[in-house]
Amino acid sequence: MTSSLQAALDPGSIAVIGASENPDKIGGRPLLYLSQFGFRGEVWPVNPRRDEVQGRRTVPRLSGLSRAPDLAIIAVPGEAAVAALDECAEIGVKVAIMMASGFGETADPAAKAAERAMVARARARGLRMIGPNSQGLANFGTGAVASFSSMFLEAPPQDGPVGIVSQSGAMSVVPYGLLRARGIGVRHTHATGNDADVTVCELAAAVAADPALKLLLLYLESIPDPHHLAEAAAIARDRGLPIVALKSGRTAAGQAAAQSHTGALANEDRLVDAFLERHGIWRARDTTDLVAAAELYLKGWRPEGRRMVAISNSGATCVMAADAASQAGLDLAPLEEGTQGRLRAILPSFAATRNPVDITAALMTNSALFSQILPVIAEDPSADAFLVGVPVAGRAYAVDDFGRDTAAFAQATGKPVVIVAPQAIVAAPFRSRGLPVFSGEGEAVRALYQFIAHHERIREAAGRPPHPAPPPPAKAPPRLLDEAESLDRLARAGLPVVRHRLCRTAEEAVAAADAIGGPVAVKGCSAEVAHKSELGLVHLGVRGAEAVRTAFAACRAALEEAGHAASGVIVAAMARGRREWVLGAHRDPFFGPVVVVGEGGKYVEAMPDVALLLPPFAEADVARALGRLRLAPLIDGVRGEAPLAIQPYLAAAVAVGRLMTSEPGIASLDVNPMLVGSEPGECLALDAVVFVEGSVP
Amino acid sequence: MTSSLQAALDPGSIAVIGASENPDKIGGRPLLYLSQFGFRGEVWPVNPRRDEVQGRRTVPRLSGLSRAPDLAIIAVPGEAAVAALDECAEIGVKVAIMMASGFGETADPAAKAAERAMVARARARGLRMIGPNSQGLANFGTGAVASFSSMFLEAPPQDGPVGIVSQSGAMSVVPYGLLRARGIGVRHTHATGNDADVTVCELAAAVAADPALKLLLLYLESIPDPHHLAEAAAIARDRGLPIVALKSGRTAAGQAAAQSHTGALANEDRLVDAFLERHGIWRARDTTDLVAAAELYLKGWRPEGRRMVAISNSGATCVMAADAASQAGLDLAPLEEGTQGRLRAILPSFAATRNPVDITAALMTNSALFSQILPVIAEDPSADAFLVGVPVAGRAYAVDDFGRDTAAFAQATGKPVVIVAPQAIVAAPFRSRGLPVFSGEGEAVRALYQFIAHHERIREAAGRPPHPAPPPPAKAPPRLLDEAESLDRLARAGLPVVRHRLCRTAEEAVAAADAIGGPVAVKGCSAEVAHKSELGLVHLGVRGAEAVRTAFAACRAALEEAGHAASGVIVAAMARGRREWVLGAHRDPFFGPVVVVGEGGKYVEAMPDVALLLPPFAEADVARALGRLRLAPLIDGVRGEAPLAIQPYLAAAVAVGRLMTSEPGIASLDVNPMLVGSEPGECLALDAVVFVEGSVP
Repeated sequence: MTSSLQAALDPGSIAVIGASENPDKIGGRPLLYLSQFGFRGEVWPVNPRRDEVQGRRTVPRLSGLSRAPDLAIIAVPGEAAVAALDECAEIGVKVAIMMASGFGETADPAAKAAERAMVARARARGLRMIGPNSQGLANFGTGAVASFSSMFLEAPPQDGPVGIVSQSGAMSVVPYGLLRARGIGVRHTHATGNDADVTVCELAAAVAADPALKLLLLYLESIPDPHHLAEAAAIARDRGLPIVALKSGRTAAGQAAAQSHTGALANEDRLVDAFLERHGIWRARDTTDLVAAAELYLKGWRPEGRRMVAISNSGATCVMAADAASQAGLDLAPLEEGTQGRLRAILPSFAATRNPVDITAALMTNSALFSQILPVIAEDPSADAFLVGVPVAGRAYAVDDFGRDTAAFAQATGKPVVIVAPQAIVAAPFRSRGLPVFSGEGEAVRALYQFIAHHERIREAAGRPPHPAPPPPAKAPPRLLDEAESLDRLARAGLPVVRHRLCRTAEEAVAAADAIGGPVAVKGCSAEVAHKSELGLVHLGVRGAEAVRTAFAACRAALEEAGHAASGVIVAAMARGRREWVLGAHRDPFFGPVVVVGEGGKYVEAMPDVALLLPPFAEADVARALGRLRLAPLIDGVRGEAPLAIQPYLAAAVAVGRLMTSEPGIASLDVNPMLVGSEPGECLALDAVVFVEGSVP
Repeated sequence: MTSSLQAALDPGSIAVIGASENPDKIGGRPLLYLSQFGFRGEVWPVNPRRDEVQGRRTVPRLSGLSRAPDLAIIAVPGEAAVAALDECAEIGVKVAIMMASGFGETADPAAKAAERAMVARARARGLRMIGPNSQGLANFGTGAVASFSSMFLEAPPQDGPVGIVSQSGAMSVVPYGLLRARGIGVRHTHATGNDADVTVCELAAAVAADPALKLLLLYLESIPDPHHLAEAAAIARDRGLPIVALKSGRTAAGQAAAQSHTGALANEDRLVDAFLERHGIWRARDTTDLVAAAELYLKGWRPEGRRMVAISNSGATCVMAADAASQAGLDLAPLEEGTQGRLRAILPSFAATRNPVDITAALMTNSALFSQILPVIAEDPSADAFLVGVPVAGRAYAVDDFGRDTAAFAQATGKPVVIVAPQAIVAAPFRSRGLPVFSGEGEAVRALYQFIAHHERIREAAGRPPHPAPPPPAKAPPRLLDEAESLDRLARAGLPVVRHRLCRTAEEAVAAADAIGGPVAVKGCSAEVAHKSELGLVHLGVRGAEAVRTAFAACRAALEEAGHAASGVIVAAMARGRREWVLGAHRDPFFGPVVVVGEGGKYVEAMPDVALLLPPFAEADVARALGRLRLAPLIDGVRGEAPLAIQPYLAAAVAVGRLMTSEPGIASLDVNPMLVGSEPGECLALDAVVFVEGSVP
């Protein structure tokens, strides 16, 4: 597979089917680019009506070629495109880029079927297809620019350390344009369109193998094949190549729009978050965000911590940088007392030396202050990263020295530095020395946070075992186990389960209550009832033989009245922890098994405070996920409460993850409430609903 | 007061104390600017050592002037500055701008005291002071540029419809620079520094009166005088002038930095939000945000609703615009069926016509598609606002026509339009026609949302009664009322309170329990105990005379053991609603009375889900605030629950607001829990803690 895609990225020969003399036509643009950007392989225009296009000899049909091209660009529309694809398969082309629209992205079932059929025919003969509805691929390392984008006319390319792989044509080149405007070189700019055969994720895996890359950007409207993305992430992690992905279709409105754009299938957005995090991929919110931190990635910095020091000639920059750091999740640790003393000896008495360091407007009359303080700060071990803000300067300031000295400072410390300089004249001397410059404190701090937190995420992702593939579509609807079976299944998986007994008779129930001791819960048990309370099947705090008998009878009667087959009546210990949690799992059609942890109770859907985890995962992963939830403060105890004994819950979550990966027959499970208290023994599953695949007993 | 500040904004004469020949010195820069930017009043440089500076005759001392200048710039440092201020007061200067640093913004108590003393002396003689630590004021309408900022050398000014008032010097000119780079004219650019006398809010009120303004931007590090800001907001609302404010010091780290920058006092950040919202002021998150929507405000558009239609040649722009709209809070309603039919007749079959409208890459071969669809969409009544995205275009596209036709479209509809065009060549024809252009979908949608939501907020703020001033600092610590007194005080204020009786003897308690009926709560009552549970003073579900006697005795014993004076024992009805809410109030030293509404229970501080309201307010304001909380879905009922009967709670919140404004003796109150159920009668205050001012009985 990868070798075919290698042929798409670095083809020895390219045929253009529907080659046009007009470089502003879809069939003419790639020919222009192949000439203009120095492609050194062979180029064969195919056109039955002309002998020559754009100075190159044509062939009338693909079959007229003496040998098959590595790559064919299909720039004809509709049925002619389908015929051309078949012809490519016939003669042994390795990869075809199908630029025609009007297939899977439309609402027309016939067009969708045509897309599926042509993919099947191509695959049967070993031909890989990119598209349809693809703007094409562009590799500025080889000059293989098989794309009709207008962008390369407007923003001249330059080979460089960034790769972009996108479903959308526009989003393959908009980040390119933004990066080029900042002087950053881009090697790969690929648009895969409808992803009917080769997907953006599969192509990303091929691109990630390029050793020249330092940053890989992705734009996706759907992730139907997470395993390809996981593979790309693994290749990238091995090479130290960070991936930043913009996955759109976050909202229902966006998913509806994506459906008519590239025929994208809808992913559950919280799972996209969980999946990307698991694999060390940073998720960008929008286009600006996608490229915001690019310069930081290209510097070779390896961030080690979250402590930022801010330095500015403006107190307001200091305040706003401190606000932004706190809000993003960076710390502003004070500089060491010795450092502060040395700074006080340099700066005016009204300057601030703690952190942020405020040089004040005194910089206007003495530009040397800037150069004098940087070496002092460089020697302080308190910082992991720096923000240097010069929001206003000009004629009276030695701005070129500021750029020079900051570059030397960055070199000396080896730590990340971001610059805030909204004025072009101030930005220039920093930018010309390769430092990342931002026009506002917010942007600078958020980029720095992303860079640091992304590296943390990559380190966490290293060595994680692979996530299992999603299940094949179920043949029959899943089947509910009754509560006793559900609890037993979970107990066997290692979960702490409330002490209980399934009773067939009232006397068994009385005996069970006696054995358990104290007041008990008496609950009607049926594999036909998932929600017991509504049917009056739950009796709590039942105490004494007579009360147990009454509750038993009430449960039987209620089940009978509702017409549900009874498995019996459960008698269980009454238990209470300090809070009700949930522990659930299901299988996502794209992402496979998913475990849900967080707050339980009745309002899990209405007011969710849960995290999603993709197994297998470790207790530390669960703890990290819980730490970001609203209820996180409760774990350590608030208002004089003892801390929660959370470890058994973490272990239970890991056990559920293991169960879901090892027993494909379990469709879903929902433990709600799962109690967590101050003592480890208080962690108990009180109720459970397990669904199994219909075919599994 | 305002007339003095008018003299600062539009002075007839200006003295520069410490006038310098060197225009790169603080005392030289204003002289340069007054010449360069056409100030037509009189300018008197004061310098005892030179006869002439920058071509102007000097006077050796201020007292050597034949008459007092309207405005004096004090550009000398330290004690000389203090002496100059006294001299200004002596001769009758109206306003002095004190540029010297080293006063209230330092940690030095003597410097802080010197600042207070000089303000007192100036005020006593009718002199208003701006600063110290002020960069100065700049009015490009009159040429009165009394500022030493370097920015005006770098970004040439142009009089225009924007005003900027800032504590920080940098933040008075950074937004100026960003706006000027976008071609927007700015009239006012003022920096008030330490705000020791004239504050940014007071100056903002004076600037808001300028009839030429269409947008007022504020940067604040502290709001010690909300009444001035309320006055500015009222003046602005009367004139239809929107205010956007960046209040920094949001976080503890930011507040610490602000303290050493301008000596700013810390405001509670959630109250800043509540105050700004109450007065129709939009709060910007950072510098970029402060100016992000400027172009929209200047167009004269009056947005009427939240329904956005997106139009692009890129499906990805459509998807990302839809995502951004949903996430920001804008709706993407489908176009009418008739409109869609007309669009289908124009666009290719694979285009999307619902909303977003995706012209597709077909625009590359037929630029006329753009011009043809706009008039069709203009006639559809489904839209309140539009996003037009052209993320990629170039040589093959009629981009100038796109700009022309979109401008005509905006003219025809009179509705807000934002453009997404990351390429400079595409942005130009839109920008040259005055349309707001953004480089990403996210930025464009968020600016549009801000513009629409800000106008909603301004409309809501119209006609709100004034918020009362904060109380004078209390002379004694507030005094706790016991629970019975607290509940009585609230009942008199109109709150629904649980049925209860304060009992002195066990027999009174038995009689009370009998009268109330059913199980009761028995609670020890003392004005020395705010948290009863911890002392074992709460007995719930007490049933029968014997149990009541036992509980009564236990409460008395527990109070005695803890050494607290007992008021008696409360016997109250047991009541339960569906959820525990909180209803609280306190007095903020800056913002006065504040009412807290939202989720109650034990974790109000640890996991807050509350909103703050500044009284007086209406039930609709409470409902709107609750609608943004996490628990909002519960109000309408979820999972088959009946909706909550929320009206009595809204009324209770309004009553608490009234109580706090009408009874200054109440320091704070906390009703937790306040029950809310499905029936109006279930809304009850179960427990209350009221603190009164020490001097009030």
